Amino acid sequence: MLLRLRRALPAPQLEAILGLASELGYRTSFLDSGSEFLRLEGSGRPDHRSLFEDLVGVAAVLESDNARERHERAPGQPDTQVRVHGGRFGGKELSLVAGPCAVETWPRLLEIATAVRARGATLLRGGAYKPRSSPYSFQGLGEEGLEMLARVRAETGLGIVTEVLDPRDVEKVGEVADMYQIGARSMTNGPLLTEVGRTRKPVLLKRSFGATVREFLLAAEFVLAQGNTQVVLCERGIRGFDKITRNLLDVGAIAYLKKATHLPVVADPSHAAGRADLVRALARAGIAAGADGLILEVHTDVSEVHSDGAQAITPDAFEEIARDTAALAALDGRRLVHFELSKALAS
Amino acid sequence: MLLRLRRALPAPQLEAILGLASELGYRTSFLDSGSEFLRLEGSGRPDHRSLFEDLVGVAAVLESDNARERHERAPGQPDTQVRVHGGRFGGKELSLVAGPCAVETWPRLLEIATAVRARGATLLRGGAYKPRSSPYSFQGLGEEGLEMLARVRAETGLGIVTEVLDPRDVEKVGEVADMYQIGARSMTNGPLLTEVGRTRKPVLLKRSFGATVREFLLAAEFVLAQGNTQVVLCERGIRGFDKITRNLLDVGAIAYLKKATHLPVVADPSHAAGRADLVRALARAGIAAGADGLILEVHTDVSEVHSDGAQAITPDAFEEIARDTAALAALDGRRLVHFELSKALAS
Amino acid sequence: MLLRLRRALPAPQLEAILGLASELGYRTSFLDSGSEFLRLEGSGRPDHRSLFEDLVGVAAVLESDNARERHERAPGQPDTQVRVHGGRFGGKELSLVAGPCAVETWPRLLEIATAVRARGATLLRGGAYKPRSSPYSFQGLGEEGLEMLARVRAETGLGIVTEVLDPRDVEKVGEVADMYQIGARSMTNGPLLTEVGRTRKPVLLKRSFGATVREFLLAAEFVLAQGNTQVVLCERGIRGFDKITRNLLDVGAIAYLKKATHLPVVADPSHAAGRADLVRALARAGIAAGADGLILEVHTDVSEVHSDGAQAITPDAFEEIARDTAALAALDGRRLVHFELSKALAS
Amino acid sequence: MLLRLRRALPAPQLEAILGLASELGYRTSFLDSGSEFLRLEGSGRPDHRSLFEDLVGVAAVLESDNARERHERAPGQPDTQVRVHGGRFGGKELSLVAGPCAVETWPRLLEIATAVRARGATLLRGGAYKPRSSPYSFQGLGEEGLEMLARVRAETGLGIVTEVLDPRDVEKVGEVADMYQIGARSMTNGPLLTEVGRTRKPVLLKRSFGATVREFLLAAEFVLAQGNTQVVLCERGIRGFDKITRNLLDVGAIAYLKKATHLPVVADPSHAAGRADLVRALARAGIAAGADGLILEVHTDVSEVHSDGAQAITPDAFEEIARDTAALAALDGRRLVHFELSKALAS
Repeated sequence: MLLRLRRALPAPQLEAILGLASELGYRTSFLDSGSEFLRLEGSGRPDHRSLFEDLVGVAAVLESDNARERHERAPGQPDTQVRVHGGRFGGKELSLVAGPCAVETWPRLLEIATAVRARGATLLRGGAYKPRSSPYSFQGLGEEGLEMLARVRAETGLGIVTEVLDPRDVEKVGEVADMYQIGARSMTNGPLLTEVGRTRKPVLLKRSFGATVREFLLAAEFVLAQGNTQVVLCERGIRGFDKITRNLLDVGAIAYLKKATHLPVVADPSHAAGRADLVRALARAGIAAGADGLILEVHTDVSEVHSDGAQAITPDAFEEIARDTAALAALDGRRLVHFELSKALAS
Repeated sequence: MLLRLRRALPAPQLEAILGLASELGYRTSFLDSGSEFLRLEGSGRPDHRSLFEDLVGVAAVLESDNARERHERAPGQPDTQVRVHGGRFGGKELSLVAGPCAVETWPRLLEIATAVRARGATLLRGGAYKPRSSPYSFQGLGEEGLEMLARVRAETGLGIVTEVLDPRDVEKVGEVADMYQIGARSMTNGPLLTEVGRTRKPVLLKRSFGATVREFLLAAEFVLAQGNTQVVLCERGIRGFDKITRNLLDVGAIAYLKKATHLPVVADPSHAAGRADLVRALARAGIAAGADGLILEVHTDVSEVHSDGAQAITPDAFEEIARDTAALAALDGRRLVHFELSKALAS
Repeated sequence: MLLRLRRALPAPQLEAILGLASELGYRTSFLDSGSEFLRLEGSGRPDHRSLFEDLVGVAAVLESDNARERHERAPGQPDTQVRVHGGRFGGKELSLVAGPCAVETWPRLLEIATAVRARGATLLRGGAYKPRSSPYSFQGLGEEGLEMLARVRAETGLGIVTEVLDPRDVEKVGEVADMYQIGARSMTNGPLLTEVGRTRKPVLLKRSFGATVREFLLAAEFVLAQGNTQVVLCERGIRGFDKITRNLLDVGAIAYLKKATHLPVVADPSHAAGRADLVRALARAGIAAGADGLILEVHTDVSEVHSDGAQAITPDAFEEIARDTAALAALDGRRLVHFELSKALAS
Repeated sequence: MLLRLRRALPAPQLEAILGLASELGYRTSFLDSGSEFLRLEGSGRPDHRSLFEDLVGVAAVLESDNARERHERAPGQPDTQVRVHGGRFGGKELSLVAGPCAVETWPRLLEIATAVRARGATLLRGGAYKPRSSPYSFQGLGEEGLEMLARVRAETGLGIVTEVLDPRDVEKVGEVADMYQIGARSMTNGPLLTEVGRTRKPVLLKRSFGATVREFLLAAEFVLAQGNTQVVLCERGIRGFDKITRNLLDVGAIAYLKKATHLPVVADPSHAAGRADLVRALARAGIAAGADGLILEVHTDVSEVHSDGAQAITPDAFEEIARDTAALAALDGRRLVHFELSKALAS
């Protein structure tokens, strides 16, 4: 590691830094006569960077080569591929997650699942527990919704991606989910992240609309630190000052993440756009920026949707996006994983 | 209530709206020939607005007069005053919460508590459970920290404001806390809000740095909906594009909240500024905009602080702010509640 | 047009609205009994929407069908194609603008121009007048720079895109430029927009990093209103709270603009990224979202660049982007216009 | 000066830095063995910092003690006081600028001017040239408006603050204005800033809603660099993601500016709030954060206003703010300068 210390550091602060380094087994040397750049040599661990950053005398950790955090991509390190039932994210493979915002009724759920499976999805999204801004809004069907998800999984073979909101529900949701979804509102929920980290089930982690990329990566680190290595990062748009789209899809973050971490990255153009007519363009932009897949809100009767209705797209619009994804992936020698999409799609 | 419906509404969506209105006991009438403005008459309840907002056909709820949410201030409704041990927020009274970011050692905690009590604080802040960006950062002393808080409360008479992060800790933290703090990272944590709502203990709810004011008020509503009426809102700065201050203290939100809700509002100039030299000016701005108190990070040895060090102020700097607060409050016929601040302060 | 008026409008405000409508030759009728929705029938003009928006009693102009502003795309209206020397933007054709941030020396300029011409650019960018944050920074070579641009145009056949900052320089810059660049800092400079609007030379208009899309379109309208129809809109990133990239490339705005206006749209991934290693990914995202071309900062000796150095890419990196652009365009049945790019590129 | 150079700097970049230092007459020495911190000794000039910042090899200018820019406050340097006709900004004196958004009719202008003069204003604002988002909106009365301003100045004794938009109008506007206003949309207009810098008339410079504080200060430097030392900085709110207020009044920036620069700072609560009912609270917050005055939109018939109507306050609301300002100023030993405000106000 290479630390930049604050200039003109009081002696106790300097001693705290050197003491911690010694305790953790590092050899220390200053690069400069001004005692500003401190090199730590020895074999470190992923938690060391944060331990030093916590000290008031440390201005910044400039290099963390011998103490990389678990999400960090070492030079030359290949992508981690996360496999979720029929879906695969990362490496040269992309997958699509599609489905309704919330689980509503059994016939509707089956109809949507069948439709998206036939058009390129390997994973079904659908909330049984919905995080809502208002305590009075529909909070999901709960256990009844979970049962429907289990049944649709059995009938269609689609893997299930569903949200968990409460650390006390992790076990129960895990009985049905193939992949936990951690929503944007939960990205900063340390106890929840820790609890899903204790499982060995894949996690789709959404970026909070107010979070920096560093904070997003550290949220993933909460899961990884518990030994669960199956994290997929999801960029879903951040807050901006204009209202043309609900959020700003941060394609720069997607591009940056593909370099900074070995974890797969997907985009959520539905929540970024907040309006159905712009979802396809944002989906394309996300894949072109490097994303390993998409999560999309799809519904078979758009006029009936209970929440987030304006952004749900039809199955046919979803198929167009699946075709776009396959074509864009092919330009990079990547391929879209899917069940039964027409031969024309296969790269 | 007055609803604005989407124009050219499909029949099933209109029926869904009229059906819900009928089910909830409202008489309905359109204000206009275009069936866009729907008046609902009858006696409503606080949850009705969200029920209508959830329907796709409802563009906006323009008036909620007969179905006000619990946080809303009715015309002429006085401030709710929240009393916390020696502190009182709202009405004509202001209080100051001061203390370290995290509970560290017993001597230090006692020293800080004694210092802030003598200079104008009635409540002590200090985290036993700290929400951190990194899983490897100091997460607080936990139960040991709670014990120290109980002891310092007994020795000084200060009320304790301390954070709860996990719904499973609400009971345990509540044995020590006079007021739960819900941090900015937990504002969107519905299960946690619900759990503190089930208690009858005051709650200091911080605004997430990415949340709109409407979302902030609805987070309070999660607590209020459970029957806990003792919520104090805390504006602590939102994310901005400049790095002069860590966050932007949204004084416009403070001013707006004092009109829109009957709940007390306090400002956190420490987290907004992120640097000690600007805390006083932001504290003054917050009070001048209408805040009912402040929460401030104070430490007796600034060079030793474990986290958020750069923003902690000294007890003497805190005393200046207490004097400012008393003087500003007096201009409006308000007063600062305190234990032993010098007579000069009393309005 | 369809206006939404403020509710409970005082009589003089209502009269002002009806009076203006009458003066402009519209027949008026209220859609609703509440006098909130006012329909204006008759043949309008592009300036009418703003005249009504200026009135205090008008809450919003909901439809402007019979009085579209000049930038608005009518239903079914095809793209306006802007032709600039060898470049063409819009319709099914894309073009690339490439070159240094500022004109520095003649050999360097010629070297860069030759390199980008051979790799897919039809237009050369390069500032003779540079808008800078500091009065003491290099402001460009001025007339000497213009002379070099004229010379490099003659020698390479590339069209010249160069910035004009001052309304008093419009004529002088126009003697050399094939296309005026209006920088992000000048998007709100009405006198300058008016002055370039009086010419008949194409204008590349950059979005201010703090502007809404509506403000951006109205800036274009300043040019169009003077009779100059050759405007290309350039999204170059807006201000955000994270510093991973210098700005946020707003791909949602690109997608929206392609629907809302008939004017061509290009992306500037160099200024959005602010770092060379992410330029390619943002370039791809911009094209995939629908952009009609790119403007890129390219330099042959990156270590020597005077300003904005960290974001300049090499000619070889530019060629990769040109190949990406051609391949992405081909997926949509579009093509990249270029001089001599290898056959493999041609769609 | 103290420079931090980029690490592992190529030789030509290092030579460029040392060469410039030598050319400008500095003695150079590295603080560290890693050649990262370069001390420049000797007597510098205000333009030197930007010259070094322009070099690619310079990561940051850490100290500019011997080459301070003109806006920077040297240790212990008192406030610059800017005097404008009857108004004085800075030091221990505050002034209020009030008036309509735009000059409309002579009777209305006289009425407003008389009203604000009697209630605490020493300066009248009012635009003859209005910067508008749309080319079709009312752009002001132009020369006719200037004539009315000259006449109202003669009749009331109020100083005139009015906007100049175009460098070609500086002379003409200067014949009437006691203080040029540079609007937020013109903050990045270098030619305009340079032109008003060539005069010796005070300048009220508004911060662009998308500008960092550093960019704001450098805009002031454009004026100062021409020898015009009479600049008052105006914080008027920046863009945010919520729509409760039109903009975010950045009180942290006000507090920071009072430390970083010797120039006076005023707040514009009208444009920040964008709604009359919150103007008073924001005015108070601005003064409490340290502002040396306010600029406020006041109108005698709010229902009649042509632009920005919703934020204009009545003369009586203005008087409340004047009284607040006087009282808040008195708490710091400062005073409000005014013509005829009642004795009760005088500190």
